[in-house]
Amino acid sequence: MNRSTTRIADLCHHVGATVTVRAWVIHLRSKGKLGFVVVRDGTGVLQGVVVKAEVPEADWAAFGTLTQECSVALTGEVRADARAPGGYEMGVRSLALIGASPLDYPIQPKEHGIDFLLDHRHFWLRSQRQAAIMRVRSELELAVHDFFAARDFVRCDTPILTAAIGERAGLFSTDYFDEGTAYLAQTGQLYGEALAAALGRIYTFGPTFRAEKSKTRRHLTEFWMIEPEMAWYDQDDNMDLQEDFVRYLVERVLERRPEELKVLERDTAPLACVSEPFARVDYTDAVRLVQEQGGALQWGEDLGAPDEAMIVDHYQRPVFVVNYPKEAKAFYMKENPADPRTVRCADLLAPEGRGEIIGGSQREDDYDKILHRLTEEGLPVEAYGWYLDLRKYGTFTHAGFGLGLERTIAWICGIEHIREVIPFPRMMGRLTP
Amino acid sequence: MNRSTTRIADLCHHVGATVTVRAWVIHLRSKGKLGFVVVRDGTGVLQGVVVKAEVPEADWAAFGTLTQECSVALTGEVRADARAPGGYEMGVRSLALIGASPLDYPIQPKEHGIDFLLDHRHFWLRSQRQAAIMRVRSELELAVHDFFAARDFVRCDTPILTAAIGERAGLFSTDYFDEGTAYLAQTGQLYGEALAAALGRIYTFGPTFRAEKSKTRRHLTEFWMIEPEMAWYDQDDNMDLQEDFVRYLVERVLERRPEELKVLERDTAPLACVSEPFARVDYTDAVRLVQEQGGALQWGEDLGAPDEAMIVDHYQRPVFVVNYPKEAKAFYMKENPADPRTVRCADLLAPEGRGEIIGGSQREDDYDKILHRLTEEGLPVEAYGWYLDLRKYGTFTHAGFGLGLERTIAWICGIEHIREVIPFPRMMGRLTP
Repeated sequence: MNRSTTRIADLCHHVGATVTVRAWVIHLRSKGKLGFVVVRDGTGVLQGVVVKAEVPEADWAAFGTLTQECSVALTGEVRADARAPGGYEMGVRSLALIGASPLDYPIQPKEHGIDFLLDHRHFWLRSQRQAAIMRVRSELELAVHDFFAARDFVRCDTPILTAAIGERAGLFSTDYFDEGTAYLAQTGQLYGEALAAALGRIYTFGPTFRAEKSKTRRHLTEFWMIEPEMAWYDQDDNMDLQEDFVRYLVERVLERRPEELKVLERDTAPLACVSEPFARVDYTDAVRLVQEQGGALQWGEDLGAPDEAMIVDHYQRPVFVVNYPKEAKAFYMKENPADPRTVRCADLLAPEGRGEIIGGSQREDDYDKILHRLTEEGLPVEAYGWYLDLRKYGTFTHAGFGLGLERTIAWICGIEHIREVIPFPRMMGRLTP
Repeated sequence: MNRSTTRIADLCHHVGATVTVRAWVIHLRSKGKLGFVVVRDGTGVLQGVVVKAEVPEADWAAFGTLTQECSVALTGEVRADARAPGGYEMGVRSLALIGASPLDYPIQPKEHGIDFLLDHRHFWLRSQRQAAIMRVRSELELAVHDFFAARDFVRCDTPILTAAIGERAGLFSTDYFDEGTAYLAQTGQLYGEALAAALGRIYTFGPTFRAEKSKTRRHLTEFWMIEPEMAWYDQDDNMDLQEDFVRYLVERVLERRPEELKVLERDTAPLACVSEPFARVDYTDAVRLVQEQGGALQWGEDLGAPDEAMIVDHYQRPVFVVNYPKEAKAFYMKENPADPRTVRCADLLAPEGRGEIIGGSQREDDYDKILHRLTEEGLPVEAYGWYLDLRKYGTFTHAGFGLGLERTIAWICGIEHIREVIPFPRMMGRLTP
């Protein structure tokens, strides 16, 4: 059946030929002895023109029974037509209903509330807009692999089920045989550090979990992260790599997914800013900037979303905020030799009010200092034995970062809430479908 | 620091030049005023030749303090030398100890038990053999993406946290806010089916979980699967795709990772069998074949590992066993029109006693039949509402499969137990490091 089915995206190679398209009906219209059926197959949209005199009687009758989202097989000649949705149309010679679709198909061409749409996510994904987001997501994921492959990074899959280790915010947990409780990983970074000592430069690409009760447009309980970790990189190397990476991702989507961005009505002009060097601003200067603009941020505090927005608005391009106060950041970040109150880290803020899409740092490579920080933060030192080993046996300069995939897609696509950029989002209050 | 560090794998581009390598010591030897230090940096192995008269006095003294797995910076001229491990050596002009390594480094050049090695997985990964496996894994993962990208499949990330849906064997579970219990997905397939209706041809690539108490060389509690799902594919199309896919994966590793396969002492001759057409054997014939060879297998039973081995030994190449009895397989497989006691499915058995690496099927697209099967198997029909919707609104012929990544890597690398082919394996009794 595959071999006898032509995908709509491939019709450009079949102009003048007779092919069969199998697809779902999204729009119907008829005028006497002339019918129009617009179908989608996940690769594109095609208008079929059905002339009563040109199809068998049974097929004309079948045309009359079609409904939204029923599946059909259309056979006919492919014609280029600039006015047609998708650029091609088919002069239908035969039409068969494959799977009927009752008239109560939930998603109708009208406004639906977000909860209704999420309840029917399996259908909502069929809409042109949602499908376009999914194709951009897929392109971006491929771009990630191509970027790191070109630089000889080794992709490594770090474990999801972990003993008590990682960051401290909400954790999902499960019983794990006689081992007691396992926690769903919030990050693969600590494992990434061990792998960097084994393989040099690595990256992870996988789901991460936060059992946080945050209900914002930037939070999911299950989201995907890319976490590179590089032996012998310092924080400057780290930021250079991030800059190349983000620039590559944006340019790749602009180059290869223009049709999808058009469906999403994304004004791509603001994305051009990535071609300039990203701004790099010391945290202390960032605080001053926020304060000058009337923000209440005090030195020592982490940036809130409004603070981030003020900073990025000032620069009108991606901004690295570097060297945060130690207290605001995780235990594993390297103390800044130039100012030991701070650490060698950077958050990368995306433009257009998107906020943080990357958090990265050089890692503390001094055994005593990291042990001190672990203790200070009240973390279970015994669980970090293998992690401390990396500093005890041949410690090494290294750095890495984590890019939030959904936040990056949402920025590039111009989607307000990240729940739309993952096939089946998981949030507080949302576990189905 | 990145810019001042040359990776060992890149030394071929620097013959005759003076470079700095930062790496870990794996071997030391000295003879009067001549010293040899062999280092690894995760990309390769390099021998540095240290002549007392040619380095500063302090550097010669530092050489005397080196131990296994300490980290060092070596600067000197790169020389091609066919006898040297890796093909190059360095005439060292300066040497600095970066991170010391106590003499009790756990992994010594002697036999260690498997539990000891797994307890020290963060160090074990530094061994040449384990690092080679990780590089093959990474290559294979990249190959997966390239294969599907070339065919315009959309990569989709299906959820890990799910409500009660999926297969029935052991499930890990966690509290999920007010939604009650969430289960860690054993497969992304059902979601993949919804996505195929939206996007045409899709594939997933992610971790899956089984809380099974099996302790075999083919089971992990956390493993990675690739699950393609294709609209308008029947089971024959499905098997053709699988055959192309597996052939591509094997040939890609043979072509791009010959050095790693050499480190693993993999005899690659048996892998050549993938270039021939794979065998396709009806389940009924497979049972007869096993019985003829003295096996106790009865029609209706699923194949055991010894049965699989007998079948593959007979054909000496990958074998699809097709059309299993309905009772032996999952509810979603399409009833075989030619013999309704069976379903349109296939398991792909790998050669060399490796057993099943792929399970695939055409999916039942008849609403009444799949509802009947769900009920028959005592599954919670209400939880499958959205899945049934795919048959209710525009049902479609579709098929898909799941390839077990670790089993495939283990086969290609010739590794007996799949615990070695994932960075940090999770099994019964193993949750750390």
